[in-house]
Amino acid sequence: MTPPYGKHPATLVRQERPFNAGPPPERMRADFLTPTGDFFVRNHGDVPEVDAEAFRLEVAGAVERPLALSLADLARFPRREVTATLQCAGNRRQELVERKPIPNELPWGLEAVSTARWSGVALADVLAAAGPTGEARHAALAGLDETERHGHRFHFGGSIPLDKALAPEVLLATGMNGAPLPPVHGAPLRLVVPGWIGARSVKWLASIRLQAEPSDNYFQRVAYRLFPAHVDAGNVVWEEGAMLGELPVNSIVTAPRAGARLPAGDVRVEGLALAGGGRDVARVEVSADGGRTWRVARLGERRERWAWRFWELKLELPAGRHELVVRAWDDAAQSQPADLEQVWNFKGYMNNAWHRVAVEVG
Amino acid sequence: MTPPYGKHPATLVRQERPFNAGPPPERMRADFLTPTGDFFVRNHGDVPEVDAEAFRLEVAGAVERPLALSLADLARFPRREVTATLQCAGNRRQELVERKPIPNELPWGLEAVSTARWSGVALADVLAAAGPTGEARHAALAGLDETERHGHRFHFGGSIPLDKALAPEVLLATGMNGAPLPPVHGAPLRLVVPGWIGARSVKWLASIRLQAEPSDNYFQRVAYRLFPAHVDAGNVVWEEGAMLGELPVNSIVTAPRAGARLPAGDVRVEGLALAGGGRDVARVEVSADGGRTWRVARLGERRERWAWRFWELKLELPAGRHELVVRAWDDAAQSQPADLEQVWNFKGYMNNAWHRVAVEVG
Repeated sequence: MTPPYGKHPATLVRQERPFNAGPPPERMRADFLTPTGDFFVRNHGDVPEVDAEAFRLEVAGAVERPLALSLADLARFPRREVTATLQCAGNRRQELVERKPIPNELPWGLEAVSTARWSGVALADVLAAAGPTGEARHAALAGLDETERHGHRFHFGGSIPLDKALAPEVLLATGMNGAPLPPVHGAPLRLVVPGWIGARSVKWLASIRLQAEPSDNYFQRVAYRLFPAHVDAGNVVWEEGAMLGELPVNSIVTAPRAGARLPAGDVRVEGLALAGGGRDVARVEVSADGGRTWRVARLGERRERWAWRFWELKLELPAGRHELVVRAWDDAAQSQPADLEQVWNFKGYMNNAWHRVAVEVG
Repeated sequence: MTPPYGKHPATLVRQERPFNAGPPPERMRADFLTPTGDFFVRNHGDVPEVDAEAFRLEVAGAVERPLALSLADLARFPRREVTATLQCAGNRRQELVERKPIPNELPWGLEAVSTARWSGVALADVLAAAGPTGEARHAALAGLDETERHGHRFHFGGSIPLDKALAPEVLLATGMNGAPLPPVHGAPLRLVVPGWIGARSVKWLASIRLQAEPSDNYFQRVAYRLFPAHVDAGNVVWEEGAMLGELPVNSIVTAPRAGARLPAGDVRVEGLALAGGGRDVARVEVSADGGRTWRVARLGERRERWAWRFWELKLELPAGRHELVVRAWDDAAQSQPADLEQVWNFKGYMNNAWHRVAVEVG
């Protein structure tokens, strides 16, 4: 299969092969549920061709009853739905790149975050059928897509701790926004892990292995680790990096765009906020002076536990240059750090510094 | 009953009546479990005299079977234990007070945080016996201690959402560190809500009411709300403040003390870190130059899910003045804000700004 995979014409394509793309800011609030044609794509390999008839999901490792489930077998489990925002750990990397180059990583702007209604079956129900044994602590996941690193070719994978794997919101999804899951989003089967970095929502999922330790897949063992700001590619000790999991609280301005020229008077500022790990967004604050003074934005209702919240604020701005800034707070009184310096890491993950947008008025 | 309630002689007493006190920094790491004589006390009223024979815990509201349980009735539920750190929402208020006065609130230093092994029964088991009905969304809690605000005398109280009330870590505690719960810590019965602000761990707990809304007790409805930095006592809209719940990630230097004069050479810096809501501490970073450059501290093992972690770092410091700074990261890549300005709120809650300690070497 080849791009553009039915993506909306306005889609920002960061990379053709593997295909990596997402919606431009002006389409990010098209609807509370991101239209499937806009939903961001983060792939590490080509979209695999999967024979739905022959497809089997293997459940193995520390289980009483290893399983090899066809799609028909999976369809016999109770049907579940969850509305969840997925966000790539590398979202907003572009801002870090402007500070210092980050080689070999995609320079995501704001677009690697989207929300969909997922349907399928609960991973917990399938794991219950397999019967986890006492040694099971992590669910190691592997997809059918292939990638290459340092001369080795292997399947994309990763893992989540067993307690998250057993949580009711984690789905083996076959549907997206009321239609069958498209190939570019992981058909015939993807995991959806609400509240966690997108990398754990493994697409083209074909293997689940319960085990005592996290997956030794490259994307768990080496990539998707968070290092301190003073660590660089040259002085890294991989074990010192923390494996990424839940997302931190984050927020962005989707309108106006950076560099916009606006007429003087009322300016409607709008954007998104997202709290990680099932927490709620408690408050969104907007500054029109680079972060010196703040006002509370109008926060849209919490429609779904695992999804983003929209916010907006009308500001009256005099002529001149203004730096609009947004920061959100989660319900644990946790907010975003002011400076890129604090969140800097040489892989460019988890940028949740205050989001700044410079505009010109008048 | 009257102070000092068997407290360690070094205890810092912030207020005699009601009694409010905690351990000085040099005793905060006396052991992984805070000795009961050191454990901080945050009381809003006098310690009530409770007749253990006559005592009943009422469970009422949206339940199938209202209960009035004696201590003997409670002892028939399965015995549970949890090691949990409790922290007052007002801990580290002193640093905020130095920036701007905060009237009518205790100027806690670092001492309103402690860890104990709690024993008792699971609140979930007791609620299951009562049978929550479909309307139940919050567990409203009330203690036997009395306080006065604005001319009204009432019992201390608050609430937690039902999903937290049903979580296995939430205990109705009758024991602390292997001994009966002392009166000043809530005997005969206190709730222990790990990962949440201390105020929800209601002492002398006598009433649990399941209901659709949070408690309308003053300490839920009015106090323990987090307001933006620009809100002051004069312009407050209570509903705009977010009710506090889970704790944010936080860390402090316990040694050396602020203002210490140290000999030149190796300095051992040590302290505590705590992640809220069951999250883990992923990393602790220490700066010896006010936050310009950072080093990773040695983090003690995660001995208990709901407890703090100790950390330490040996630094070689040349003669002169140094500002030691600590900041922790939780496992959702969430860290502490650099400045008190960001966490400022006129009630002085939830200060988790970088902790700074100025020392003089040589």
